[in-house]
Amino acid sequence: MQITKASIITIGDELLIGQVIDTNSAWMAQELNKAGITVSRRVAVGDEWNAIWQALDDEMEKADIILLTGGLGPTADDITKPLLCEYFGGKMVLSQQVLNHVTYLFEKVFNRPMIERNRKQAEVPDVCTVLHNANGTAPGMWFEKNGKILVSLPGVPFEMKGLMTAEVIPALLKKFTVPLILHRTLLTAGIGESFLAERIQEFENRLPASIKLAYLPNYGMVRLRLSATGFEKEELSSVIDGKFRELQDLLADVLVTNLDQPMEQVVATLLQSGNKTLSTAESCTGGYIAHLLTTMPGSSKYFLGSIVSYDNQVKQDMLGVNPETLQTEGAVSEATVKQMVSGALQQLKTDYAVAVSGIMGPDGGTTEKPVGTVWVAVGNNREIVTQRFQFRFERRRNIELTAVNSLNLLRKFIIDNTVSTIS
Amino acid sequence: MQITKASIITIGDELLIGQVIDTNSAWMAQELNKAGITVSRRVAVGDEWNAIWQALDDEMEKADIILLTGGLGPTADDITKPLLCEYFGGKMVLSQQVLNHVTYLFEKVFNRPMIERNRKQAEVPDVCTVLHNANGTAPGMWFEKNGKILVSLPGVPFEMKGLMTAEVIPALLKKFTVPLILHRTLLTAGIGESFLAERIQEFENRLPASIKLAYLPNYGMVRLRLSATGFEKEELSSVIDGKFRELQDLLADVLVTNLDQPMEQVVATLLQSGNKTLSTAESCTGGYIAHLLTTMPGSSKYFLGSIVSYDNQVKQDMLGVNPETLQTEGAVSEATVKQMVSGALQQLKTDYAVAVSGIMGPDGGTTEKPVGTVWVAVGNNREIVTQRFQFRFERRRNIELTAVNSLNLLRKFIIDNTVSTIS
Repeated sequence: MQITKASIITIGDELLIGQVIDTNSAWMAQELNKAGITVSRRVAVGDEWNAIWQALDDEMEKADIILLTGGLGPTADDITKPLLCEYFGGKMVLSQQVLNHVTYLFEKVFNRPMIERNRKQAEVPDVCTVLHNANGTAPGMWFEKNGKILVSLPGVPFEMKGLMTAEVIPALLKKFTVPLILHRTLLTAGIGESFLAERIQEFENRLPASIKLAYLPNYGMVRLRLSATGFEKEELSSVIDGKFRELQDLLADVLVTNLDQPMEQVVATLLQSGNKTLSTAESCTGGYIAHLLTTMPGSSKYFLGSIVSYDNQVKQDMLGVNPETLQTEGAVSEATVKQMVSGALQQLKTDYAVAVSGIMGPDGGTTEKPVGTVWVAVGNNREIVTQRFQFRFERRRNIELTAVNSLNLLRKFIIDNTVSTIS
Repeated sequence: MQITKASIITIGDELLIGQVIDTNSAWMAQELNKAGITVSRRVAVGDEWNAIWQALDDEMEKADIILLTGGLGPTADDITKPLLCEYFGGKMVLSQQVLNHVTYLFEKVFNRPMIERNRKQAEVPDVCTVLHNANGTAPGMWFEKNGKILVSLPGVPFEMKGLMTAEVIPALLKKFTVPLILHRTLLTAGIGESFLAERIQEFENRLPASIKLAYLPNYGMVRLRLSATGFEKEELSSVIDGKFRELQDLLADVLVTNLDQPMEQVVATLLQSGNKTLSTAESCTGGYIAHLLTTMPGSSKYFLGSIVSYDNQVKQDMLGVNPETLQTEGAVSEATVKQMVSGALQQLKTDYAVAVSGIMGPDGGTTEKPVGTVWVAVGNNREIVTQRFQFRFERRRNIELTAVNSLNLLRKFIIDNTVSTIS
């Protein structure tokens, strides 16, 4: 099977000193993959002529398609455009199309005067096809050489995404006959990676060559992904779906979802399908659970609000936690999170509520309650269930783990509750 | 000047299909950079024998140090260890040291029975030096060949970080004489990248060859970074500090901070130095501002809590927003955010409060208030100031922009307020 291979090259010193995290490449890889183009390498190099040139040489040899991001801004650390011009043996010319667009953006959108530096963004190598960047001033540029395609895109995520979707992917699909890549992903909770592997070893050994299985552990949970590559859509679907059903059956007791969704989406779907509302009372997560839930479009349908009670006084005043409980049991205790849930249900008038209180570190730990100790409560007006977690990581990761695991506890609570209501 | 070059190779299909974002590389690059080791390339390849082998060949040629992460987990998609064994011409042997540690982890920390798959993690190539992974079962492995160093590390961030700090960096610094790399970073707000470049063009042209300037735009603000490389610490410091002072003077009116800090840290420092407290009343950001503030250790000293009033009823019940205001002006209005600030100040009893309400998209926009319309209010018991923003991106980015820009408004308010109190 002929596979169309792509390399992604990201340009920028900021990537090599670790000042920014490269989210562009992940997004681009996803989109290419969906379109049937296999990303075989991702490379990041600095804003340095020789390094970029060398990377172009390497990847032009290894891949059919090279996507380049970064290095197109209006400021002096950007050398990509002249380099590409020389690499593909062209000369710089003014693109009237780009100039009109840049002028329009400054006059109508930015409401700022345009300066010479901005005008220069309309200059492009005469050997490229200009791709329209609806969201910004730096155009995309499409080059061809020896049957290979190189596309240069701005590094601003919003602009790059617009160009990829509207211009690059459609043009690539016209150029290449690509195979189908199908993925099926499920999420498990409550079982370690090695035990999971043990349990599905036989299944894994029997997988056909066209299907790959990957383990993706995160937040103490493991995501499993089946990937099938081929050209016959119906046959491929039927094979991977069969295997995926088999896998789900094997893991029924630890299965969270058979969709490639984050935990907050799983909870959101449950709430929406039951027409229920949710609130949170957050101490140690400081609003992170509410943030996860409200990142999803349409969350106002089921998420009503949160009381982030970082301070104990706020726990008392806004959630009605008993000062005596705080004194005797402490803020990180089963009794406190139970009262927090009750307070949230009452104050925010929701069907369900989740409450968390814990010690995220690096300070605040004791022998009895070391850093990573977390109490979670979830409930409705009839019942409250609690769980104690003991994480052992650094602050940010403890916050993430607390959020995802408390949403998982809520998920189980909603399911149990829905079943018991029906039966 | 002899520069010690490092390449980072990240292994994993999940990176090439974009299922996870590579945060490891950024962190590693930061640490290497601080230690004086220049990261010249970052490469990601899939879980495929030939691709990994080829990447090793390439990077062993281009760099002095190669750091490899990923591909060391206990499950079957991991092929890195046998490959490295063959690449460096060794054979697999059981490391008693690693086995003892893995056994200890299962018995004392995980409290789970150990299975054969876990025992295999104690097998290592006999041609490597084992590096102790205090936080997990997969050991680090140090290889040498033709004067080049290759270190293989687990992909779990927590484990990788522990190994880098405790083992890898100290060992590399013993092996190589590295130059000093000094960075000075400042953050500006309220000026576009091109205008900034225009303003400091002359400064930039006069920079000595040993100093590089980079523009790092994000969230509608621009970070500027000076980087100096050399061997004479005092001379280098004096040159870069002189230039950095010059740059700060040039940009005094748009300067947010002369430290490489996120906006929430700048606000936190202001609050702490004035011994003041803060609360938030968040609608459209859904707790994200509170989350940013509580990600920092010690935030309980100045951040007391938040009322995330996603639903209008919560705005009325918990923050005392007038139902009539919501009806006539709407939830996204100057009057509403003013009342939200007042409510937060009163209910959460803080010195300052910030309130936001807006339309994050993709739905909910109108002609008058399109997606991206945001009202922000910041205030104390004496005064409230407001600002309307108009962003134009997708949901997640609008949330981030709202958070950072409202913290910037708060920053200016605190400064103005502190000055007026003193004078």
